[in-house]
Amino acid sequence: MRLIFDVNGGDNKYEIIRGAIEVSNECDIDIILVGREDFIKENLQKLDYNKDKVEIVGAEENIENNEDPAFALRRKKNSSIVVAMNLLKEKRADALISAGSTGALLAGGLFIVGRIKGIKRAVLPTIIPGIKSNTMIIDSGANMDTNPDLLLEFAMLGETFLREYYKIDPPKVGLLNIGVEEGKGNSLYKETYTKLKDSDINFVGNIEARNIMNNEVDLVVCDGFDGNILLKSIEGVIDFAIKNVFYNIEKSELDDESKSAFTKFLKDKFKNLDAKEVGGTILLGIDGNIIKAHGNSDSRAIKNAAKYAINIVESNVVNKIKDKVERK
Amino acid sequence: MRLIFDVNGGDNKYEIIRGAIEVSNECDIDIILVGREDFIKENLQKLDYNKDKVEIVGAEENIENNEDPAFALRRKKNSSIVVAMNLLKEKRADALISAGSTGALLAGGLFIVGRIKGIKRAVLPTIIPGIKSNTMIIDSGANMDTNPDLLLEFAMLGETFLREYYKIDPPKVGLLNIGVEEGKGNSLYKETYTKLKDSDINFVGNIEARNIMNNEVDLVVCDGFDGNILLKSIEGVIDFAIKNVFYNIEKSELDDESKSAFTKFLKDKFKNLDAKEVGGTILLGIDGNIIKAHGNSDSRAIKNAAKYAINIVESNVVNKIKDKVERK
Repeated sequence: MRLIFDVNGGDNKYEIIRGAIEVSNECDIDIILVGREDFIKENLQKLDYNKDKVEIVGAEENIENNEDPAFALRRKKNSSIVVAMNLLKEKRADALISAGSTGALLAGGLFIVGRIKGIKRAVLPTIIPGIKSNTMIIDSGANMDTNPDLLLEFAMLGETFLREYYKIDPPKVGLLNIGVEEGKGNSLYKETYTKLKDSDINFVGNIEARNIMNNEVDLVVCDGFDGNILLKSIEGVIDFAIKNVFYNIEKSELDDESKSAFTKFLKDKFKNLDAKEVGGTILLGIDGNIIKAHGNSDSRAIKNAAKYAINIVESNVVNKIKDKVERK
Repeated sequence: MRLIFDVNGGDNKYEIIRGAIEVSNECDIDIILVGREDFIKENLQKLDYNKDKVEIVGAEENIENNEDPAFALRRKKNSSIVVAMNLLKEKRADALISAGSTGALLAGGLFIVGRIKGIKRAVLPTIIPGIKSNTMIIDSGANMDTNPDLLLEFAMLGETFLREYYKIDPPKVGLLNIGVEEGKGNSLYKETYTKLKDSDINFVGNIEARNIMNNEVDLVVCDGFDGNILLKSIEGVIDFAIKNVFYNIEKSELDDESKSAFTKFLKDKFKNLDAKEVGGTILLGIDGNIIKAHGNSDSRAIKNAAKYAINIVESNVVNKIKDKVERK
């Protein structure tokens, strides 16, 4: 098992090195650190690790979050993302972990590593926590201006991933919509409903945004714009609820001991909504294993993303998707 | 001041009568109760009211939530919505309150009462609570398959409403989007951004779903499908947070007194998210005052919707919108 880490991407470059070294030590795996050589070497000196398992590949540039991805990919040939993607394409490692620009990773996945043959787009499945279990959303922002055939593909990618990686068989697939009855929604969703119904996907019908966290379905299929609104709304409300409640506890007439107990209690309960616990996000549909970690990942988050990558590799998801596409 | 109440619509028909009578008594206004005559008369006997202020207009049918609105409007001429809309069109009252089918109210508003001249569609502005104040969303589900010109109209309707009714001057208008930078989103939102920027709307830029409750803007403009996803997500998460936290308090090791204190504390704080407190939703863009109340409204909610209607009438919003459209 060998993993590539994009050290230049994300806010905490030292944390990436640290997380990578920790997973190398813990899981006894090879790692390739891609980024500014001097920076990497300097920071490796602070850490204990097995030198035989750590390789450095220099890449002086970084693609920033606000750069146009396709343009930056062409122009910054010496960026960590371009260098790392090429290593992956050459099969020098089993997976790539990066906390860098999502757009650039998607572009790199599409243009350098390439899509699985027969797949139209790559997606970033997002996991949302719920009452009893988690729910996957595809697509949550990678793809704008979709169409019914694309949403059908999203359903297939997600269903296969849930079955092969999460061992949920069969996964319940729902279509995000503004009402449960067939015929609801705009033209995109009305047509997609029909296609899903006629497919061999385990389609259970429309699911309203309000019911996502009740775990009525395992996978929610939607356009990338809508999925992103869904996701950001959930994040925003959780944030609001936390701030609002904490602020009100502070301002309230409760005694100090109660305030403190209550705050601690809530912080503990909200912990499971912490994105860093969930690992990373796989770029599904790419002919290679690419895991996107949160931009502000610390070493623990990087380690979780790496462990997720190892499991993805071991579950052989990419080949399972290839089989599914070929059989169509 | 005279208000029409659709008694056949909604889940709690007796509550509608009760709420209507309460507002008639409290605010000393005339009311017209539209619905099944026998039912209305029978239930009026349980209440104290000024007979001179209460008129009954019979309408035996109801348009159910799951009926196709336009079709039902044509077929059920004796439905409370059709009868009530005609009364409003004939200017027999200043406003109409209904807890019935939103689709039928929208259709009735469009086809019976009619749009304000020059307005393309009617919208249902929704109010979302926030940290410091509330935020209005247009459109939150009435209009599917929109286009940039329509979103521009939504902005104008909402801006005028906020200025003339809520006295917010100037209101900050934002465009729902998946990122703050110009050029973000799908083609609909990219084009709409440009139109808003070039208009005389007080447009402050894109607003992400995650920031809506921070009250960075007073009005969020979006396509009806996206707005509905936004709205239902927020409802779903609040519901989840409440269930999750309450469930955890119950299951926890806290002593009974603490459990009870925390539960009471939270219930109190979450009360301001209760939709029934907010009043009703106006059908903006119609040449008449139509207020939609929640389907499960009790008498208190109906009373709030009615008071909201009275204020809408007094603020003369419809004529202010007419002025704005004429001046264009």
